[in-house]
Amino acid sequence: MATDLEAWRAKRRREIEDTLASRLPAAADDPGRLVEAMRYSLLAPGKRLRPILALAAAEASGRGGALDTSVLVAAAAVELVHCYSLIHDDLPAMDDDDFRRGKPSNHKVFGEATAILAGDALLTLAFEWLAEVGVSTGRPEAFGRAALALARGAGMSGMVRGQARDLGEAAPGDLSTLERLHGEKTAALFRAAVEVGAAAAGASSETIAVLGRFGHLFGIAFQHADDLDDGDHARHASEAKGRLRELVEEARAGLAGLPEPGRADILRELAEALLHARR
Amino acid sequence: MATDLEAWRAKRRREIEDTLASRLPAAADDPGRLVEAMRYSLLAPGKRLRPILALAAAEASGRGGALDTSVLVAAAAVELVHCYSLIHDDLPAMDDDDFRRGKPSNHKVFGEATAILAGDALLTLAFEWLAEVGVSTGRPEAFGRAALALARGAGMSGMVRGQARDLGEAAPGDLSTLERLHGEKTAALFRAAVEVGAAAAGASSETIAVLGRFGHLFGIAFQHADDLDDGDHARHASEAKGRLRELVEEARAGLAGLPEPGRADILRELAEALLHARR
Repeated sequence: MATDLEAWRAKRRREIEDTLASRLPAAADDPGRLVEAMRYSLLAPGKRLRPILALAAAEASGRGGALDTSVLVAAAAVELVHCYSLIHDDLPAMDDDDFRRGKPSNHKVFGEATAILAGDALLTLAFEWLAEVGVSTGRPEAFGRAALALARGAGMSGMVRGQARDLGEAAPGDLSTLERLHGEKTAALFRAAVEVGAAAAGASSETIAVLGRFGHLFGIAFQHADDLDDGDHARHASEAKGRLRELVEEARAGLAGLPEPGRADILRELAEALLHARR
Repeated sequence: MATDLEAWRAKRRREIEDTLASRLPAAADDPGRLVEAMRYSLLAPGKRLRPILALAAAEASGRGGALDTSVLVAAAAVELVHCYSLIHDDLPAMDDDDFRRGKPSNHKVFGEATAILAGDALLTLAFEWLAEVGVSTGRPEAFGRAALALARGAGMSGMVRGQARDLGEAAPGDLSTLERLHGEKTAALFRAAVEVGAAAAGASSETIAVLGRFGHLFGIAFQHADDLDDGDHARHASEAKGRLRELVEEARAGLAGLPEPGRADILRELAEALLHARR
């Protein structure tokens, strides 16, 4: 089963990377190196976990499992948003990180101005892709719902809200405060990823809601696992270990509410894998 | 007629400002002062020219002149994008402007990190509003088209491309190079504003195209007028004066291609007004 999951992930990752690379081609004329900067960060090796969750959610939504190009583009749009957030987070005024995934961060290579613009352009492009696919495939409502989920997860009530909270508040004093922060900074985009995939596949509002709840729990569990691996928020580590297991269990259990729970095996395995990641 | 235009503009500006203020309420709990920063820039006094053009285009599109709330929200979304672009442009890494419209710029008041996030949040919110209105009014295709126009105008082939070109290339050596830059940095968002208004009002693709061409010409004319007022690109000033008049004439003439050209009087007057602005 684990091997199947790995094979599925590898296949989907290739599809996502092909989609990203082919839809954002190198520009012959690229003043200010804008497209080069976008591609530098977007095509750097990565796990592509958010778009992979989007594709798994599309499969799980049970509406014919329409893993066609339009769903791939929707999943890729989520990666654009993730990528923009990393570029802006690394800026000197934000986390001031010189490296990202072992490579110099975007602004170290292209300068701050281009890095800001590359992030802005990636964020905008995500909504361009969703709108374009919705209009061109004659499924504007499904992609309108996807765009709404992505904007809510990424914006002032989701990811950006979490960033602002992190800037403006002291380090979380207890686990529930920490989980509120994780919920905004990390889980809101995971939730959106799952909702985007489901919406793009034509899932009903009820199915999207069940999957969205999974995405939220998955996202918090992911961040606990990531913190445990990196030694972040170490004072909460022993509590977080317990919560990680609980969250994965709750996320998996909630999938029973799907119209065809049997289609959600990949999502279940992706959640289970959080318990074993790098530990 | 000029008085009528002024009254129409004042009324529409109030409607747009009411829409912005009521849809982006102050937050009781606002860590990192994110919402405060968004409101600081968004609700600062302004001409609201882009959303006003969107509303004029909606009237001109001749599809019942549906200037209902959904069209107002679409027009307001264009102002969100304009506002985000000003905040990011003023950053130290970009134009490094300490003042905007006579007030300290966003990052001078809230710090660079919050200013970056406020811009990101405003950009995201524009697409959230368009998707929300499209889904909630059962007109996802019209608002999908609006989102597509806005993303294309704002992003890597429009406004952001112009910013990157400005960073990466020497000052334009001739008027046509200058107009290419104006076309991207300024006119792409004007064009989008007009297209967004028309799309939200349910205009046909043909009508949107006619109006989009108007928006493009209007935007370049606007930038020439602005340069002439500010003494920017002074070496091109005498040529630009002639071009301003030509562009306004061409923009007005193109409106004859609308299904009901008589509905475009406000657009004609807005273009005409560029010839007299502050000169």
